[in-house]
Amino acid sequence: MGDARKFVGLDVGGTTMKAAVVTGDGRAAPDVSLDTHPERGQVVGLETMAEAVRRAVAAAGLTLADIAAVGVATPGLMDIKLGLIFDPPNLKPWRNVEVPRAISAKLGGKPVAFQNDANAAALGEFWVGAGREFSSMVLFTLGTGIGGGIILDGKVLEGAHSHGGEIGHLRIDLPDRGRLCGCGRRGCLEAYASATAVVARTREALDATAQPSALRQPGDGKPLTAEAIFDAAAAGDGVAQQVVADTAFYLGLGAAAIMATVDPQAVVFAGGMVAAGQPFLAQIRANVREYALSYPAEKVQIRYATLGSDAGFIGAAACAKALADEA
Amino acid sequence: MGDARKFVGLDVGGTTMKAAVVTGDGRAAPDVSLDTHPERGQVVGLETMAEAVRRAVAAAGLTLADIAAVGVATPGLMDIKLGLIFDPPNLKPWRNVEVPRAISAKLGGKPVAFQNDANAAALGEFWVGAGREFSSMVLFTLGTGIGGGIILDGKVLEGAHSHGGEIGHLRIDLPDRGRLCGCGRRGCLEAYASATAVVARTREALDATAQPSALRQPGDGKPLTAEAIFDAAAAGDGVAQQVVADTAFYLGLGAAAIMATVDPQAVVFAGGMVAAGQPFLAQIRANVREYALSYPAEKVQIRYATLGSDAGFIGAAACAKALADEA
Repeated sequence: MGDARKFVGLDVGGTTMKAAVVTGDGRAAPDVSLDTHPERGQVVGLETMAEAVRRAVAAAGLTLADIAAVGVATPGLMDIKLGLIFDPPNLKPWRNVEVPRAISAKLGGKPVAFQNDANAAALGEFWVGAGREFSSMVLFTLGTGIGGGIILDGKVLEGAHSHGGEIGHLRIDLPDRGRLCGCGRRGCLEAYASATAVVARTREALDATAQPSALRQPGDGKPLTAEAIFDAAAAGDGVAQQVVADTAFYLGLGAAAIMATVDPQAVVFAGGMVAAGQPFLAQIRANVREYALSYPAEKVQIRYATLGSDAGFIGAAACAKALADEA
Repeated sequence: MGDARKFVGLDVGGTTMKAAVVTGDGRAAPDVSLDTHPERGQVVGLETMAEAVRRAVAAAGLTLADIAAVGVATPGLMDIKLGLIFDPPNLKPWRNVEVPRAISAKLGGKPVAFQNDANAAALGEFWVGAGREFSSMVLFTLGTGIGGGIILDGKVLEGAHSHGGEIGHLRIDLPDRGRLCGCGRRGCLEAYASATAVVARTREALDATAQPSALRQPGDGKPLTAEAIFDAAAAGDGVAQQVVADTAFYLGLGAAAIMATVDPQAVVFAGGMVAAGQPFLAQIRANVREYALSYPAEKVQIRYATLGSDAGFIGAAACAKALADEA
């Protein structure tokens, strides 16, 4: 039953990258982190990525010869099939980087799989996390923006132009009056329910009401965070509770849109908001029952992710495994 | 290159059903039509379906022994995998009908494939119609409602609960203020851009303005149709032109949502509105460029369907072929 093959998964973010050896049955060795320093350019970046892989291998007490394949996940606009990053906003000034080819060359020709970071996180959760018992699953990752990934029959829905699962840009309001999104358009889910948007909506709510709120702490100097807002809601703060209820409404609409297109067995939410616990998830579920088509709404499983920030490198390792299985 | 196997595709609608023999390479023999008469009940309905298959076989100068498999497409709430119709609104009072099992029994044990009618139409267009050159495609069928189907890697995205591709219920406006949909919820694309909705919006526009319009013909007794509205727009009628422009806007939003989830190579529109020709399609394309993510918006192909009302039985035959290929 066990699959003792060893893979390395590497998840590259704008600030740090994480890598670990993962076995063929999804058990991860301790991970290593390195700063990405995208501003130093892509030549340095690629070398850092190869170094992260080497350190992960060493941390597991192995050598490269023990590794069947490597998987790399990166953010941003890319062509997954070609193995090419175009110009991701959080890896500036990288441009047109042939990631898997370059990493493979630096690792003695080791097979290297490539995937979008949000897709990789979805695949990680699907493989050994919140989605492990399902055959289809959609992940929403709530952070600075909203990322996502769609898994059908155990495979990432990459899309014809590597834009499958860009579900932060599902529109929940009309574009002539919706909130402004980071993509430059209006009405995207991301503009309502990302951690950044939750903070922005809270600021607006505080400005618009005289209602007392613990979030109104003049001069304490700390920036408002989504975490503080969810904590305040849990502690009974009225302004925060309304913001949280609205967030569950928006996420319910996003889930409903996914259910009317790909109709997955499970919809999974990841990111800092997971810390808000079961009451927030119950609010999302109630909105799904209200606003999604009845039959899938009764059946779909709405869950929190379980792998935290490990999902990306575990999913990257799953891509490496898929590559090795193909070969 | 040619596939000379013979299949029968049967497309069952609320009013009529159509069937034809289709070869393994997608060439259809002349089709036959029978009235569905759902009000006569499912026992009669199933016998009519089997009879439609027999007549299609006879119309092609063949006998059942020449047929490799049969495919049946029906509307409504169903479990595709189980081969079960629940209680589709346009086949009242049918309830819990095991369609493929019953039809197979009536046809001497012939293998019978089963599919949702909108999914079958999408598969038909994908196989030999507007989508024949692509590997992924999404079809919007604009009629009384909006049906749809998603084809990925040549296969129907059925979904975990047979609700894949229910894209008429993608929401384009918030549910607390959107237009009321036939599903009982608010803001669904279907409530804006189905033929029925186009007529309803035109009536509202005529009531709300004193602007002269050819669509304001008191006493001629003919009901207003989407076709008449598109014709009036083409002839320069201002009220009709605004309704048509708004329809293209709503369909562009629907396409954008599909592009941010499944990111297909092509989005295809079917139904009576196809008669509006290239100017309407150009308006839809302009809205896709404006409101979808830039990269897929540049690449996606936006087309009209080419098979008309034959798409359903051709797609049903494609399901029969897939079943035979599996066996």
